[in-house]
Amino acid sequence: MPIFKCDSKSDNPQVFPLDDIVCGLREARHKWRVSQNRQHEIGGRHLPSPSAISDALDSLISALFPMRLGPNDLLQETEDYYVGYTIGVALNVLLAQVRLEVRYQYRNDRLSAEALEDRAVEIMKAFSIALPRIRSQLDTDVNAAYVGDPAAGSVDEVLLCYPGILAMIYHRVAHEFYKLDAKLVARIIAELAHSQTGIDIHPGAQIGEGFFIDHGTGVVIGETTIIGERVRVYQAVTLGAKSFPVNEDGSLHKGLARHPIVEDDVVIYAGATILGRVTIGKGATIGGNVWLTHDVAPGSFVSQATSRDERFFQKCGE
Amino acid sequence: MPIFKCDSKSDNPQVFPLDDIVCGLREARHKWRVSQNRQHEIGGRHLPSPSAISDALDSLISALFPMRLGPNDLLQETEDYYVGYTIGVALNVLLAQVRLEVRYQYRNDRLSAEALEDRAVEIMKAFSIALPRIRSQLDTDVNAAYVGDPAAGSVDEVLLCYPGILAMIYHRVAHEFYKLDAKLVARIIAELAHSQTGIDIHPGAQIGEGFFIDHGTGVVIGETTIIGERVRVYQAVTLGAKSFPVNEDGSLHKGLARHPIVEDDVVIYAGATILGRVTIGKGATIGGNVWLTHDVAPGSFVSQATSRDERFFQKCGE
Amino acid sequence: MPIFKCDSKSDNPQVFPLDDIVCGLREARHKWRVSQNRQHEIGGRHLPSPSAISDALDSLISALFPMRLGPNDLLQETEDYYVGYTIGVALNVLLAQVRLEVRYQYRNDRLSAEALEDRAVEIMKAFSIALPRIRSQLDTDVNAAYVGDPAAGSVDEVLLCYPGILAMIYHRVAHEFYKLDAKLVARIIAELAHSQTGIDIHPGAQIGEGFFIDHGTGVVIGETTIIGERVRVYQAVTLGAKSFPVNEDGSLHKGLARHPIVEDDVVIYAGATILGRVTIGKGATIGGNVWLTHDVAPGSFVSQATSRDERFFQKCGE
Amino acid sequence: MPIFKCDSKSDNPQVFPLDDIVCGLREARHKWRVSQNRQHEIGGRHLPSPSAISDALDSLISALFPMRLGPNDLLQETEDYYVGYTIGVALNVLLAQVRLEVRYQYRNDRLSAEALEDRAVEIMKAFSIALPRIRSQLDTDVNAAYVGDPAAGSVDEVLLCYPGILAMIYHRVAHEFYKLDAKLVARIIAELAHSQTGIDIHPGAQIGEGFFIDHGTGVVIGETTIIGERVRVYQAVTLGAKSFPVNEDGSLHKGLARHPIVEDDVVIYAGATILGRVTIGKGATIGGNVWLTHDVAPGSFVSQATSRDERFFQKCGE
Amino acid sequence: MPIFKCDSKSDNPQVFPLDDIVCGLREARHKWRVSQNRQHEIGGRHLPSPSAISDALDSLISALFPMRLGPNDLLQETEDYYVGYTIGVALNVLLAQVRLEVRYQYRNDRLSAEALEDRAVEIMKAFSIALPRIRSQLDTDVNAAYVGDPAAGSVDEVLLCYPGILAMIYHRVAHEFYKLDAKLVARIIAELAHSQTGIDIHPGAQIGEGFFIDHGTGVVIGETTIIGERVRVYQAVTLGAKSFPVNEDGSLHKGLARHPIVEDDVVIYAGATILGRVTIGKGATIGGNVWLTHDVAPGSFVSQATSRDERFFQKCGE
Amino acid sequence: MPIFKCDSKSDNPQVFPLDDIVCGLREARHKWRVSQNRQHEIGGRHLPSPSAISDALDSLISALFPMRLGPNDLLQETEDYYVGYTIGVALNVLLAQVRLEVRYQYRNDRLSAEALEDRAVEIMKAFSIALPRIRSQLDTDVNAAYVGDPAAGSVDEVLLCYPGILAMIYHRVAHEFYKLDAKLVARIIAELAHSQTGIDIHPGAQIGEGFFIDHGTGVVIGETTIIGERVRVYQAVTLGAKSFPVNEDGSLHKGLARHPIVEDDVVIYAGATILGRVTIGKGATIGGNVWLTHDVAPGSFVSQATSRDERFFQKCGE
Repeated sequence: MPIFKCDSKSDNPQVFPLDDIVCGLREARHKWRVSQNRQHEIGGRHLPSPSAISDALDSLISALFPMRLGPNDLLQETEDYYVGYTIGVALNVLLAQVRLEVRYQYRNDRLSAEALEDRAVEIMKAFSIALPRIRSQLDTDVNAAYVGDPAAGSVDEVLLCYPGILAMIYHRVAHEFYKLDAKLVARIIAELAHSQTGIDIHPGAQIGEGFFIDHGTGVVIGETTIIGERVRVYQAVTLGAKSFPVNEDGSLHKGLARHPIVEDDVVIYAGATILGRVTIGKGATIGGNVWLTHDVAPGSFVSQATSRDERFFQKCGE
Repeated sequence: MPIFKCDSKSDNPQVFPLDDIVCGLREARHKWRVSQNRQHEIGGRHLPSPSAISDALDSLISALFPMRLGPNDLLQETEDYYVGYTIGVALNVLLAQVRLEVRYQYRNDRLSAEALEDRAVEIMKAFSIALPRIRSQLDTDVNAAYVGDPAAGSVDEVLLCYPGILAMIYHRVAHEFYKLDAKLVARIIAELAHSQTGIDIHPGAQIGEGFFIDHGTGVVIGETTIIGERVRVYQAVTLGAKSFPVNEDGSLHKGLARHPIVEDDVVIYAGATILGRVTIGKGATIGGNVWLTHDVAPGSFVSQATSRDERFFQKCGE
Repeated sequence: MPIFKCDSKSDNPQVFPLDDIVCGLREARHKWRVSQNRQHEIGGRHLPSPSAISDALDSLISALFPMRLGPNDLLQETEDYYVGYTIGVALNVLLAQVRLEVRYQYRNDRLSAEALEDRAVEIMKAFSIALPRIRSQLDTDVNAAYVGDPAAGSVDEVLLCYPGILAMIYHRVAHEFYKLDAKLVARIIAELAHSQTGIDIHPGAQIGEGFFIDHGTGVVIGETTIIGERVRVYQAVTLGAKSFPVNEDGSLHKGLARHPIVEDDVVIYAGATILGRVTIGKGATIGGNVWLTHDVAPGSFVSQATSRDERFFQKCGE
Repeated sequence: MPIFKCDSKSDNPQVFPLDDIVCGLREARHKWRVSQNRQHEIGGRHLPSPSAISDALDSLISALFPMRLGPNDLLQETEDYYVGYTIGVALNVLLAQVRLEVRYQYRNDRLSAEALEDRAVEIMKAFSIALPRIRSQLDTDVNAAYVGDPAAGSVDEVLLCYPGILAMIYHRVAHEFYKLDAKLVARIIAELAHSQTGIDIHPGAQIGEGFFIDHGTGVVIGETTIIGERVRVYQAVTLGAKSFPVNEDGSLHKGLARHPIVEDDVVIYAGATILGRVTIGKGATIGGNVWLTHDVAPGSFVSQATSRDERFFQKCGE
Repeated sequence: MPIFKCDSKSDNPQVFPLDDIVCGLREARHKWRVSQNRQHEIGGRHLPSPSAISDALDSLISALFPMRLGPNDLLQETEDYYVGYTIGVALNVLLAQVRLEVRYQYRNDRLSAEALEDRAVEIMKAFSIALPRIRSQLDTDVNAAYVGDPAAGSVDEVLLCYPGILAMIYHRVAHEFYKLDAKLVARIIAELAHSQTGIDIHPGAQIGEGFFIDHGTGVVIGETTIIGERVRVYQAVTLGAKSFPVNEDGSLHKGLARHPIVEDDVVIYAGATILGRVTIGKGATIGGNVWLTHDVAPGSFVSQATSRDERFFQKCGE
Repeated sequence: MPIFKCDSKSDNPQVFPLDDIVCGLREARHKWRVSQNRQHEIGGRHLPSPSAISDALDSLISALFPMRLGPNDLLQETEDYYVGYTIGVALNVLLAQVRLEVRYQYRNDRLSAEALEDRAVEIMKAFSIALPRIRSQLDTDVNAAYVGDPAAGSVDEVLLCYPGILAMIYHRVAHEFYKLDAKLVARIIAELAHSQTGIDIHPGAQIGEGFFIDHGTGVVIGETTIIGERVRVYQAVTLGAKSFPVNEDGSLHKGLARHPIVEDDVVIYAGATILGRVTIGKGATIGGNVWLTHDVAPGSFVSQATSRDERFFQKCGE
């Protein structure tokens, strides 16, 4: 836009040197685009929008649990109407966002507009069909929280008040998009939950039914984690990758299974850190603040004394 | 609603199989309601609404601290008018929510509508009278933060910027509802604070004046915790229940006093975890990351070396 | 306002004893003001407003990254117009807030209105000129996240989804205000980030280019921290002050350099706690959950065995 | 509220004498209430709310013509869902308003709460059933505008652009409430149309199908007017009551049929004024600015020369 | 701003030639400013804002009639609080607008900032004191409508539904500003009423108590009109200036008394036009569509035959 | 959608027979669509949206007069930025609406998507280029009002307060779309003005510079009207088509020039009605309430005596 001459001297008595700032920012953007080989990009917004996705998720959540998380003026007699309309709108908003992601994904390929559109519609159709199943899975999570927390007064209180449930609603939706290869949309959804709850579950994580996170702040669950049924975790638990593999050549292989497998009925107490592709056997219990980088046998109980400090036992006790 | 025939074949060319999704979701809800013995429920929303409570709390907070957290256009000469009107509206919104909780609480009893209404009004009257006291208690918290944090420039900065203060405003209000047995409303209020600050205080916790939480993310304070005056805690401190009582019969007794007693003038540094009905004596200091499951004498100083690892001293030092 | 007679008996049949509550709250405020020697204060709001600052920051962020974080309807051809107008508005809103802070700062001095205004304008001019530099610094952060996280699909995904990036956008803006001595505005901005991301960076912290925080919940970085270039930290890392200096006289000296210096290319894994004015040498790696209160040599690797528990090695290993 | 002492001297240095104004306004309200014998009224809002009714009408209009006046994101496949939900909400809002009117109507009677509620529900049920008929009647109006105005490009343009159609949508709804004796709600609806279109149709007016008002500003149609089918009127037409009945005793009998009867296929041009219970016969045409206070035979044509000035013909032509 | 070079050739592939349009509009504005001798104007908005005034009027109206036009959630027990706060805010918004008008009014004089501020405050104080009187006057208008219209069901219906009452609320407020010489603010208020009701009353018009306008669309009441008590007018009545004084020198003298004087108890029916400084005597009745440019004796009755067409009587009747 | 079985008996205990209403409305819509031969229509909204156009016009007006009708926080130094961004957004919104109109216009033709898009872009480009000219024309209108109304205090007051100016802003924009054959968008814009001002100008009317409408309520200006420069009209003036051509065959020819030609410097007073393709010669004056259906010579003065009643002169005067 030649109208903006960044080399001209601005002589107007503005409070702020606005023209200089605009030029400076344009140069900064230009420098960035050059560094990314994008200086020739022209056109409108081409990335999915977190705020649009956030609105669609609000609608979706409201339609999944209409009488409890839906609008205050909802009556049971208008439930199906509400659900149908609200989901219809939300699906079309998400279709627009998935369309953006698909175009972005294939921006260097030479796919026809029809092929891209078909891909976006295919993803969204598959997603839409999954909604009743997602609702049923979430019901198991609600039930697990009610059963697992003696402080929970009712299943309704759980749905209204537990951040772990909110995080799982977002996650089960995000995971569906992840499986359908709309990974950017999936990530945006995961971050919506992270920001509200302090619970950071990568959309790739596979989580079985009846999963319960109590308190939740600081929980991190990595991309290739596999969690069985009826698992319970507390605040600040990390299911992460082993960050510094000593015996390897140093090059991190992307996409490798690098997070824990947690089998059915495991309980992991607050602050525990489990790293790497280890397996926590069915029914095991991991104590608070435990630091674990190896497999745990089914049914066993790991506290600080048996994990982090076991080397001291060995060193000292003998 | 027979108009929705879920067994009929939908033959319209919709992008999304909306009718099938609506039917699928209805079935999921039905299954859930049957599992909860609620299939005959009819009627409108019967649970308190987090968004309504959130709005009422915004008003209440604004009226408690009108010149600092109230509307930008407030003048000191309209302070009382603003306070009176705003609290009047907020109390009536909360009355509607408490009414919902009372009805929900007694949904299986056969109380008359008048009895339920009397109960709701009684709760709200008691709550309303407590407001000046709550404001004064919060002033002690603000003062404690100012005195306790050398980085705090003024009491006003504390009120505007410290998430620990925000969490306490919500908590002191929530605790009042908890004591009045409006526990669902209380929980919803506590979660509003948790979501904004990362500080998770159960509304049941009894907290004395001059309480200060610094940074705050990850703090968890359990339901039966009792905290004295002038106590200070840092981020990621847990005052929790002992989750795996080894010597017991395994059945968790709900409502038992199961969280710590923290006496006056205690300081608990970041990441410390104190579990069970232990007593931290007056003036004690608990170091960062300490893991504590036993009583601490008044005035003592507990660091990692004296707590978590004491067994190693014993094992190795001999 | 004599019209409100707090000693008169209210005899009207209100549901809530509103007049008593208003009087009670007035007395509570009066008591507080007396305790702060402010009973004679008259006038309007005189503190910066978090909500006004929040709106201005939204605009600023949108203008810094117009095509990715700006409005959905933005076209590249209107980019400069959008940037110029949006920044113009945001700067004026911030000027009003800085003006409030300046007046508040010098409320006990006898500066002329002109002097105060000059001070506010001077701060804002200096801030405005820094914007292109801030944008370029943030580009290095985005790049660092993309390079440092094998899970990151693109630089755009990083900008849209990573809370660590969002926290750094707020921080680099807040730090500018901190340097210009608008410390209350700076703190308010820092808390906006803290509330959204769970990452608590004091605006005073000096952070080099290419800084990357992964996951981020629970990270705390103190006021006098100095961080070099290309540093990476994970969730729940604390760069704090040593909270209980045993050998001193007990009086905390405000403003002292009391937080760590982290040199270039350091990596600090999740949960590590580094306290006091220690130096982590260039290229060092600090393992998860490590508790560190002493210097670390360049290039070294500190895991739990070499830090927290080193005393046991010494005690036992002999 | 004794707390507000209106006789006390205000001595605070307010910019505005707010306490005096509040007291003055309270006295003015008190004086008014005494003059209306209402000084003992206590309680909340007891009148229907124009803004609530306005919102409900917006919803209703949107649901009556979903693809043309409904939300921009509506798809035909979600039409029924949208209609069902939107009408469900609107009917409940209107039920609340009708309830207020019923209570107000019978405020001096001693009806039980159940009887009042039954009355309100009865009105709303009858109204709800009428909606499909109202839609079909409005379709005839749209068609009449399209056929009657050579400038109309399509029936869709008519629905989107013609204020006469908008006025009729409001009127046909308002008239239904009028017939059901919810006359205050009906009047409020009529005024919503009046304010938007400048067309003032009393909700009591009976109007046949295929009614078309062109331009419309200044049209006034009185309460007991009866209009046949396929009638057309232009701007500033008045169908009013004869305001000064010479031969009567001067006492206006409320509820009397006092406005014109306009039979089928009549056309009334701009500015014509027809007053009193006269009959304009089928197919007659009334010219612009005509002033008419007597019957007109079917099929006749009345211009200024044959109406207003007929006395001059008589006087002069002899 | 030299950065915008309007003479440079734009070569970017925009859909719209935005740079050219911006330059073209700038030139158009420049041409206008030169034509108005304002090319050197620099600075922000210096005119009162219709939208700000509109918001303030909404508040004021709500506070003048709190239980009927106030917020739906208002209770009588919070009435005074609501009134005090709402008026306090509205007065300060209006003070800001009056300040703008005062500065604009004296923009060519050399008044000190203090003198301008004093003037603005003086106006607003005088206005604020008038509010209780304005409310009482409006009560007489409401009563007049109720008494004067047999169709009015109650005084409350009148206040909720009659556009003539709404127009008078705005007028009595606007007239106060007019008398205080804040004529631009007054005009803006008058136009707010005009737009909503189609009733155009110049803020200068002096109108006695008990004034009733029925239907109202098209009513025009000029600046120097004087109306007595208990006067009633119908739609499309004009009380205007004689627009083409034949016998004069053609130069219109601004500020002259040029509109009618309407004495007490006069009734003017729809469409009547009364022009010039004529006097309609006490208790006179003016018929519909009458065209009047001369005085009317008290108690007389003027219909079309006695006014517009009197010349024909004279010409023909002889 | 077979899921909605309209012939099934609803047996649920709803307050409102919602399913029946939904089915009834569906049938009403179906009947309408069949009557319009549209029963096979499928798809989303395909008509321009009044609310979208309304928003775009608000932006456009704000950008045409940025310092007077723009946002309150605008500074002259950000004027061009604001104008560029705001117009950019508004043009794209209007492009979307014009696109809808073009598709609707050619819905029965077989034009390619590209051809339709080209047509829409062509219209909008032509429109966009016209904006500076439109602004300059409007400046002449503002000036005319200032000069023509002795009550106008300043040109700024005229722009802020005169509904005639607002109507002309909408008209000059609408007329541009009319000329470019986007007639539905043009009509929607015209109705936005009509609703706000009571002034109904068909977008087809050709109006010269310096046009001034005073008061304005009830003004109607027809599609083929041609108005010269410096013309002034008052409220309730009609420039219409002769509605009942007696000597013709009864079939109205659409598109014929059927409204008046008003030459330069004509003044038309309130309530005058001018019908048919007559010419009002340069400098003529038409008196109030005059009814005119024939040409008027330049410079002549027409009052009621010389127009409506001339036949009486002839009849009686002999």
